[in-house]
Amino acid sequence: MEQLYVIKIGGNVIDDEDKLSSFLKSFVEIQTQKILVHGGGKLATQLAEKLNIPQQLIDGRRITDEETLKIVTMVYAGYINKNIVAKLQAYNCSSIGLSGADGNILLSHKRIHPTLDYGFVGDIDIVNISLLKACLDINLSIVIAPITADNKGQLLNTNADTIAQEIAKALSNLYDVNLIYCFEKSGVMSDIDDENSVISSINAHYFDKLKSEKKIFAGMIPKLDNAFAALSKGVKKVMIGKAEELNQLIEGKAGTTVVNE
Amino acid sequence: MEQLYVIKIGGNVIDDEDKLSSFLKSFVEIQTQKILVHGGGKLATQLAEKLNIPQQLIDGRRITDEETLKIVTMVYAGYINKNIVAKLQAYNCSSIGLSGADGNILLSHKRIHPTLDYGFVGDIDIVNISLLKACLDINLSIVIAPITADNKGQLLNTNADTIAQEIAKALSNLYDVNLIYCFEKSGVMSDIDDENSVISSINAHYFDKLKSEKKIFAGMIPKLDNAFAALSKGVKKVMIGKAEELNQLIEGKAGTTVVNE
Repeated sequence: MEQLYVIKIGGNVIDDEDKLSSFLKSFVEIQTQKILVHGGGKLATQLAEKLNIPQQLIDGRRITDEETLKIVTMVYAGYINKNIVAKLQAYNCSSIGLSGADGNILLSHKRIHPTLDYGFVGDIDIVNISLLKACLDINLSIVIAPITADNKGQLLNTNADTIAQEIAKALSNLYDVNLIYCFEKSGVMSDIDDENSVISSINAHYFDKLKSEKKIFAGMIPKLDNAFAALSKGVKKVMIGKAEELNQLIEGKAGTTVVNE
Repeated sequence: MEQLYVIKIGGNVIDDEDKLSSFLKSFVEIQTQKILVHGGGKLATQLAEKLNIPQQLIDGRRITDEETLKIVTMVYAGYINKNIVAKLQAYNCSSIGLSGADGNILLSHKRIHPTLDYGFVGDIDIVNISLLKACLDINLSIVIAPITADNKGQLLNTNADTIAQEIAKALSNLYDVNLIYCFEKSGVMSDIDDENSVISSINAHYFDKLKSEKKIFAGMIPKLDNAFAALSKGVKKVMIGKAEELNQLIEGKAGTTVVNE
């Protein structure tokens, strides 16, 4: 099967114009089909501050009231998404920017939680791959903003890590999917203070050991849980590392590769 | 050839949630291929006011400095575009929201003007139909935000009327294209104060006569110039009227039809 990379980048790359340009240049160098999923939380927070709309984050999740939904829709699906697309086009990489609402790619429902009201936050029910496939078939790289919709026309703020994972899984019948999570660290580290302690390969058994020894950064655990879930659903490989090292990550020369066995 | 409707709606429909929903319901009733081009100036102006970014309009064109470009990109390509798409999906109309940057649909350059600096305003050079055709081929209705890009990755604020016209012309080799301009009036009127004076059909000769008699509203002249230009480039029919009367417009029971002869 053809190779497909699904790559998620976070705020630390998006907020810095030079870092973003440099990342996009390395993204363009990937010669196979590719999908980029982006967040953009810091820019959303900045706009909310300018508009005096208080923001509340619980465990890194943004409580999304009506005004905050407007902000994230504008920032993620508008400003960030279209700037990335325009830059990719300038680097001769044909691309298209989409939200989960487009072509009903990601059908979600408003999160139901026993005690907390997250507001307009979406949990994904269905991934419709037809539009994604049509775009890849005409050799477009796809840039996805973390906004989805329910079946009543309500837009919903949706976790970008989860979107990357769900899309990777849904396309794994058609492609050999490599899922890459880029973040601010060099990979999964055995010592959080030592960038040289990157674990180059981790399986479920080793993950359990590190957890029991409390040798793994708490923020890393959901990312790894997601990674193992993706592998169990057909994704070929999951890689975690720095956006600045994307090409080395792909070559296995940097970051952490999460493996089934 | 298959029928295609290219419909442009303006701010008066977009700003009013009930009007927009009602318009979108009538849009969904069109059984052929369809493309919706939207503006959204009033919402952009409101956001600029909240952010204390002064706006300058010359002849209805927004002078687009860097901060204003961010605003229009967020409002047009983010908030308005994705809300329309989510609503259409809810009405069982599969749709996709795009800007001119996506798939390089509308390649533009920053406007060059001898005396005025319009800022980041785009004039269209090339329409690339491949993405539009791929979307129509999988029966997606297309929703287009009036943001384009140049070949250096710079986003540009671009007139929605012109976008509708350029897309209509570019697709007229593949489809029988009907171009509809929706605005706040019932059509082209011989008496600007009398909504009952709508001219049901206008050709170039009659247009010249009305102009020479000063019986035509100045704001109407560029719309009609655009309409005749589109007809001369292969567009089958141009209709002008109220968004509220979309289905009657299409049936020829309301508004003004602009014809070649």
